[in-house]
Amino acid sequence: MSDLPESVIFHEHGPREGFQIENRQFPLARRVALIEAIAAAGVSRIQAASFVNPKVVPNMADSAELFAAITKRPGIRYTALALNPWGFEQALAAPQVDHLGSVVLYASNGFCLSNNNCTKQEARARLAQWTELYDKHNVPLEQVYVLCAFGCNFEGEVPVADVMAEVDHTVELFRQQGRALPRIDLDDSMGWASPDSIRRRIGAVREAYPELEVGLHLHDNRGLGSACVLAALEMGVRHFDSSIGGLGGCPFSIVKDRAAAGNICTEDMVHLCHELGIETDIDLDALIEAALLAEDIVGRPLMGRVMHSGSLAEYRGTGG
Amino acid sequence: MSDLPESVIFHEHGPREGFQIENRQFPLARRVALIEAIAAAGVSRIQAASFVNPKVVPNMADSAELFAAITKRPGIRYTALALNPWGFEQALAAPQVDHLGSVVLYASNGFCLSNNNCTKQEARARLAQWTELYDKHNVPLEQVYVLCAFGCNFEGEVPVADVMAEVDHTVELFRQQGRALPRIDLDDSMGWASPDSIRRRIGAVREAYPELEVGLHLHDNRGLGSACVLAALEMGVRHFDSSIGGLGGCPFSIVKDRAAAGNICTEDMVHLCHELGIETDIDLDALIEAALLAEDIVGRPLMGRVMHSGSLAEYRGTGG
Repeated sequence: MSDLPESVIFHEHGPREGFQIENRQFPLARRVALIEAIAAAGVSRIQAASFVNPKVVPNMADSAELFAAITKRPGIRYTALALNPWGFEQALAAPQVDHLGSVVLYASNGFCLSNNNCTKQEARARLAQWTELYDKHNVPLEQVYVLCAFGCNFEGEVPVADVMAEVDHTVELFRQQGRALPRIDLDDSMGWASPDSIRRRIGAVREAYPELEVGLHLHDNRGLGSACVLAALEMGVRHFDSSIGGLGGCPFSIVKDRAAAGNICTEDMVHLCHELGIETDIDLDALIEAALLAEDIVGRPLMGRVMHSGSLAEYRGTGG
Repeated sequence: MSDLPESVIFHEHGPREGFQIENRQFPLARRVALIEAIAAAGVSRIQAASFVNPKVVPNMADSAELFAAITKRPGIRYTALALNPWGFEQALAAPQVDHLGSVVLYASNGFCLSNNNCTKQEARARLAQWTELYDKHNVPLEQVYVLCAFGCNFEGEVPVADVMAEVDHTVELFRQQGRALPRIDLDDSMGWASPDSIRRRIGAVREAYPELEVGLHLHDNRGLGSACVLAALEMGVRHFDSSIGGLGGCPFSIVKDRAAAGNICTEDMVHLCHELGIETDIDLDALIEAALLAEDIVGRPLMGRVMHSGSLAEYRGTGG
């Protein structure tokens, strides 16, 4: 019935995506404390900040300083987001950034135009330029994100074929260049995913490229987060981006007056994995403490659930 | 891989469980408006109020009045909760109550003592008295809830055998009395359920009594709500209690200072069903409007997701 992985790796996006969407600046020391608390709980990949235009995203203007201030733990990668060569080179020049090379492609042209100011064909052309830039700096390009892989508020349904076109292009380019295939991360930028649409897309990628690793970047806009992760786990997916407390969202996907929801909630999904017997190497109670710290920093209730109800560990020792 | 039902029936609990937990009184006219909005969206079973001790639960003291004020729609059952014979007879005497006979048993003794002030053996003895009372009033007894069927904050893990003991007792009693078997509703009173624990319990009931219908009453304390519903749907479960906007929670399950979460969110689960191709006869957009009304009545953000992001219907028409 299922092909559950033995272990799952979460790439924590809250400190970057979560704070980036907020319309204000949070003190650097508190963001560093949150990153360190998440790392202390055992999350092995943490996107700490982004190197983007400070005029557009002023609250990420201090990213180099932030990276410098982190007391790093061994075995943990502290990653940064960069959307263009300028940002990439800023990240390279900054101290303590662990490069987890990732480039974005788009299954939806409308979102590409809105998010990246280019057509999805232009984004493909940029992928070739990115590979040159990565090579020049001797940084491995490990991931390619396919954005809007499930649906798009600008374009409606995104067919599986449009997702596969980006996957095909990536595999072809990487093979032409004789380079190791990257992981493909299907990105549900606007919260369209369902268990069925996840199965169809993961299935299509698996059928075409059994050797390709697939990850998911999901936003829980419509309450299906844990159902989507369950469906993916049962197909053996073991890489998920997530956000502590469910922090965040993508400012470019707001249509009308509705706020985009944050990523799937890290600690809730860790709880799901543990209940299914899947290892994460994460201490859930410590991660809940970090989520409560995130809530304290943003100063409003977060959408995470287990952070407010507590883990089951304390009750399981008490009898029954 | 799955045994998805063709259709699912939601029993909306928000107007009773959601408002009952709040420490204040909401205007009767607004509660009636919410019930009517939920009915207008096509939800076919709505628990409108409870007949319980007004000294203990003052905000349900006007239940008879509330039922009288509802403009009913054909085909919809407007149900009430009663926990003892006094409440049952109050409900019988009230106008417009559609009796959906249900009695509770307990898989956990600790919760039974806390919630019902008796041992779980005494609760079983009361089941026999309840059947007599139902017969006396010629009301069919359609459901037996097994509370704490997944775990208990007082007792820890609740073994499947303890759940089955209550199911066995129910089936034996009903068979002895030559009465049609009730539906068994497994109640996750404190949010312990996971996809695995759901599969184990539904599987155990199915194996012992293939003819028995099983439903679920889930609370989403730990973010696994939609994953649990997905697991249950894939086992063919088609009866779920739920709560609009995720309103509510059970005041008796609060341990330490943590609030119990509400039921699984009706409109999020309707969205899940529709995305899986399962019929609900519910208009999701109309239900979202009702959820926004519920949010307006309680005056704080509710935990529902699709109510804030909107359904996908409007985007699906726009191209792609």
